[in-house]
Amino acid sequence: MTRDKHHKHHDSALKVNQGVEQPESVSKSAVDRYKKISRQLFLPEEYFRGIINGDRTMLSRAITLIESTNKNHQEIAQEVIEKCLPLSGRSLRIGITGVPGVGKSTFIEALGKKLTSSGHQLAVLAIDPSSSRTKGSILGDKTRMEALATDKNAFIRPSPSAGSLGGVARKTRESIILCEAAGFDVIFVETVGVGQSETAVNAMVDFFLLLMLPGAGDELQGIKRGIMEMADAIFINKADGDNLKKAQRAKTEYQNALHLYPPTESGWVPKVGTCSAMTHEGIEEVWDTIKQYESLTKSNGFFEQKRQEQKLMLMFDAIDQKLKNDFYLNKTMKAALDAVREEVLSDKISSYVAAQRLVALYYGEKKR
Amino acid sequence: MTRDKHHKHHDSALKVNQGVEQPESVSKSAVDRYKKISRQLFLPEEYFRGIINGDRTMLSRAITLIESTNKNHQEIAQEVIEKCLPLSGRSLRIGITGVPGVGKSTFIEALGKKLTSSGHQLAVLAIDPSSSRTKGSILGDKTRMEALATDKNAFIRPSPSAGSLGGVARKTRESIILCEAAGFDVIFVETVGVGQSETAVNAMVDFFLLLMLPGAGDELQGIKRGIMEMADAIFINKADGDNLKKAQRAKTEYQNALHLYPPTESGWVPKVGTCSAMTHEGIEEVWDTIKQYESLTKSNGFFEQKRQEQKLMLMFDAIDQKLKNDFYLNKTMKAALDAVREEVLSDKISSYVAAQRLVALYYGEKKR
Repeated sequence: MTRDKHHKHHDSALKVNQGVEQPESVSKSAVDRYKKISRQLFLPEEYFRGIINGDRTMLSRAITLIESTNKNHQEIAQEVIEKCLPLSGRSLRIGITGVPGVGKSTFIEALGKKLTSSGHQLAVLAIDPSSSRTKGSILGDKTRMEALATDKNAFIRPSPSAGSLGGVARKTRESIILCEAAGFDVIFVETVGVGQSETAVNAMVDFFLLLMLPGAGDELQGIKRGIMEMADAIFINKADGDNLKKAQRAKTEYQNALHLYPPTESGWVPKVGTCSAMTHEGIEEVWDTIKQYESLTKSNGFFEQKRQEQKLMLMFDAIDQKLKNDFYLNKTMKAALDAVREEVLSDKISSYVAAQRLVALYYGEKKR
Repeated sequence: MTRDKHHKHHDSALKVNQGVEQPESVSKSAVDRYKKISRQLFLPEEYFRGIINGDRTMLSRAITLIESTNKNHQEIAQEVIEKCLPLSGRSLRIGITGVPGVGKSTFIEALGKKLTSSGHQLAVLAIDPSSSRTKGSILGDKTRMEALATDKNAFIRPSPSAGSLGGVARKTRESIILCEAAGFDVIFVETVGVGQSETAVNAMVDFFLLLMLPGAGDELQGIKRGIMEMADAIFINKADGDNLKKAQRAKTEYQNALHLYPPTESGWVPKVGTCSAMTHEGIEEVWDTIKQYESLTKSNGFFEQKRQEQKLMLMFDAIDQKLKNDFYLNKTMKAALDAVREEVLSDKISSYVAAQRLVALYYGEKKR
């Protein structure tokens, strides 16, 4: 298959050949070979056509390729992403987090159904680095969002499994590109709220929503420090029945706490509200809040500015991660680090001198 | 001059010769040469002897060497640090931050005088990456701490000037080592409270104190998000006269806000108090709080654990910084980054593919 016109830009980009796999055009014979030994594989163009024509099965297959660690799958995946890239961006990306037990699934289902029944196409993705191939993930669990799982205007995808947080975050980010090319205009990215995932999610969404339980005074909610400040809105869930008064009190406490922070760059004042995913009380308010944020930040330019910054940030983070991983995963460096660790801890050499020596050793290694 | 016995450990450390300056023993003739063309220079052993014998002038000279960008000064400095390292660690390191105007100088003087008059030896250092050789720094300004500047039990040092935050932080960290070898048992490290310095300071102190103004509801206090959560104690300064009630209200607000956070790893509950550096009200309470923290964390092992973690963290940070700086300061990479930036922003290539290509190009460069 000849190279698609989407590949023209390759000529103007860097010429890089030094030992790193780059997405190449995949020949039909190569695909045929793989078809025999693995699950069904298609050509990049076929995935792309399927995605933009609303074929959910092709979309799922393409995302599975993204999540695969198989090198050939990765090559195909990168080509599909490349084709989808010019068609990405046309959605509202919302990060949703909260500790286990706060009712994320019920909430996502309630808000999700509201959106799908008013004309939106909703994709629900998740980032959970603790998920595994065998055990799965507690997020994006279709059994807990049954009404949404069977909704033709919704698409739910569990978290990519295992690997590093950086790896999982990248795969989710790339899945967003595909979903947007597929026409989804609202994308939820769910995280657990007790790990490092929130920072990763915040770097790829437009709006960050934090769900809290009504027992606000209870420090055991376990939300990591720093996450509260990331939130564009905090909603106290399960504000129903006996918990209504508690939820109201919690709302006041969080409003006071947020009041102590400096103004945000966007000019947006983080909102605190209450809701009940069960009774659906306040769900409308959540969406109104998100739309208000969108309206403000699109009119003052912050929305687009943030997206541009995120693209560069993701690139810089990926560079930094690669430089570090190559260093720390290097066999010689691992051994050297272990040797030097004791000396630093027992004050035989300073942290800085240790670092200098290790990096110098590494550069010597790289020259070989 | 033969190598000092403190250098024995070099034989067990890494053998590194690949193009990086390592502290070497400085010959007497080299020093004599430099004496002719620069300010007075001494041998590492002479600085060391002076420092441990309480010679403040030698301590100052040694810190000046640490701050110098001159390669030969650096060599001597590193040897002095190496000698001091086994004698370091025997102090309480306290980070003090707050916006300009909160009264840090008056506060440091009030608390400082209390300490020096009760038998302590106090060193006051500062981290202010915005300081310059000509303009100096707003921190560690001796004219604003006159009583302390003339106190024979105190030693005040303005921030190292300019350079990166990482560079300034390193120099301050190394100065701490010298001050501890010199016998100072309490060390203040002051920062401005509006930059990135706080994270750097938090990584090198035992206790982090945040000073706030009484007008707590005023978001314009300008304290960066995240700093409040770092604090082991928050003291509302200028709690005197007409501001007394305001200060009390602020104290309650911050106590409520801190209450919403998860428990700290140390088991310490961050304290909120009020004080007046002018009337000296509450200054005693500040010191009591710090001593309580010390007592708790030394008995449960957290104090030592934190110090060990900091040593390693500083090493890893220095490694990461070096890997990144060498990449981003590389001429070829700078040009390549500029070329690729536009393509990423206009969705021609994904952030990740851009990163992969750049790093591959870089490794090709390094092999030359």
